[in-house]
Amino acid sequence: MDDGRPVVGVDLGGTKVLAGVVGSDGHVLARCKQKTARLKDRPEALLDLIAEAVHEALASAGLGLDQVAAVGVGVPGTLDAERARVAIAPNLGWVDLPVRDDLSRRLDGARVCLENDVRSAALAEHRLGAGAGRQSMIALFIGTGIGGGLVADGRLVHGSHGGAGELGHMPIRAGRGRCSCGQKGHLEALAARPALVRYIARRVARGESSVVARRHRGDLTRLTSGDIEAAVRAGDKLATRAARRSARYVGLAVGGLVNLLDPELVVLGGGVVEALGQAYVEWAAEAARPHILAASRREVPIQAARLGDDAGLLGAALATRE
Amino acid sequence: MDDGRPVVGVDLGGTKVLAGVVGSDGHVLARCKQKTARLKDRPEALLDLIAEAVHEALASAGLGLDQVAAVGVGVPGTLDAERARVAIAPNLGWVDLPVRDDLSRRLDGARVCLENDVRSAALAEHRLGAGAGRQSMIALFIGTGIGGGLVADGRLVHGSHGGAGELGHMPIRAGRGRCSCGQKGHLEALAARPALVRYIARRVARGESSVVARRHRGDLTRLTSGDIEAAVRAGDKLATRAARRSARYVGLAVGGLVNLLDPELVVLGGGVVEALGQAYVEWAAEAARPHILAASRREVPIQAARLGDDAGLLGAALATRE
Repeated sequence: MDDGRPVVGVDLGGTKVLAGVVGSDGHVLARCKQKTARLKDRPEALLDLIAEAVHEALASAGLGLDQVAAVGVGVPGTLDAERARVAIAPNLGWVDLPVRDDLSRRLDGARVCLENDVRSAALAEHRLGAGAGRQSMIALFIGTGIGGGLVADGRLVHGSHGGAGELGHMPIRAGRGRCSCGQKGHLEALAARPALVRYIARRVARGESSVVARRHRGDLTRLTSGDIEAAVRAGDKLATRAARRSARYVGLAVGGLVNLLDPELVVLGGGVVEALGQAYVEWAAEAARPHILAASRREVPIQAARLGDDAGLLGAALATRE
Repeated sequence: MDDGRPVVGVDLGGTKVLAGVVGSDGHVLARCKQKTARLKDRPEALLDLIAEAVHEALASAGLGLDQVAAVGVGVPGTLDAERARVAIAPNLGWVDLPVRDDLSRRLDGARVCLENDVRSAALAEHRLGAGAGRQSMIALFIGTGIGGGLVADGRLVHGSHGGAGELGHMPIRAGRGRCSCGQKGHLEALAARPALVRYIARRVARGESSVVARRHRGDLTRLTSGDIEAAVRAGDKLATRAARRSARYVGLAVGGLVNLLDPELVVLGGGVVEALGQAYVEWAAEAARPHILAASRREVPIQAARLGDDAGLLGAALATRE
């Protein structure tokens, strides 16, 4: 994309690697998906697999490594300030790993660029999705966790140590709800999928009825966003209440973020939003509006993300020219 | 400051206008202070008074309007996107007023630049105070209200409509505490001076003892930050609890903001912080630390603002070259 040549974008998740060759116009020319099960805590093997996925995606596109400008990788973890090393990626078992150079070595010295996976998705939504043409944007992704990305003056905000965008860990209801990070009251603890699932499971255990009560043989900890969506669509009251509650907390956070950053646009994405669709976005917007300061209560658009599963690899590709 | 010439900075408050001539090195060469009582809802008269204060400050410095590069004004309100008009300034009774041109006309056509007063103070702390030399910073000012300013990539963040920095209106404890904006649970509603005063007054009314109980003939709504500071210094338990509670909420917000923006530095200022001093800053930092994500729990410095009452006029002066 730098120079008209395609780039490779890699979306690295806890369970899969998705590599895609992306043309200079932002279209995905070829893809390769590999499962990463059993590669946790085995960084060398996982880096080999990533390189393999890149080679296969390139082969599908009929291209060689010398014909692409760079390889971008979206990593589910924290990078160092130079974006050369992964400081920590809990789901991969990576700690302080020099991924940029280790991967470049496996790819004939190709230029490798690292970016956080959620920031990558935000970047893609800004350039090619819901935020195209906007100078400032906040993206929130609500799934197993909650993360996001901020765009100001047309650029992704990285922060002083590359850590900006962790908006799942903003206290939103002091003292309530245990977060994955160990603290209480963070947005993620109140609104991510595990919070929805806990909300439903607790009430089913207390005897409330729900069409999801017998899902996964009653092991409600295994409820997916899709299960919840199906229940909401079937008019299930408990699932609907849980989904609205999540959207309400997201809306509170959005209201505060709009007051803080005054963006042109707010984009909501991630598994929960994809499953529950426009209704969820509207519930969140409804909760956000009254919190946005009257003096600036312009109609800030609050919209669904548009790129779905491709956001990660497209963003990783785009990050190579940031 | 643009070109080595001094500029005039004006700090416009609800009760006073403070104009200062600021040399290119950031020193205040001369000041003029005027009371603005009874000028609320009389914009023409207040604009006249501002012009008078500018002329007097210049006269004290032995300078004419043609010898300064610009006049910057920090306004306690919301500006339009071009920073030409004041959209709303509740404490002045201003609504949609073309202040930039109206004031320029009163100042022989001098270049006038408007900035929000709190953003001005944040800018001053960034350039000349606690944040000097940092590329990114968050400043929170805790007084009658709570506002702030964000610096990213060395520049003040304005947002898409000039409204960024309203961090007093971030929900921090959903559903608790009525805010000046009418909503609940915002940081300002929990931690600004009126929240401290309410906390103390309610408990005194219920029979708790405090050295402030008889202050202002028992009209505790009139308690100042100084009254509370004196009580804390005297070891008063209720006042100390109220101050710590405010600092705790500020700390929660700081924790979330650090996760969101990953700044190099956090600066706390405003009347409450000035009165309660380093103890307040440390209580806030103590509350913030555990909320800052472990992966990036670097020691982000959390410090007191340094410029005190001059921050507003210095920032208004600096804003002329932004």
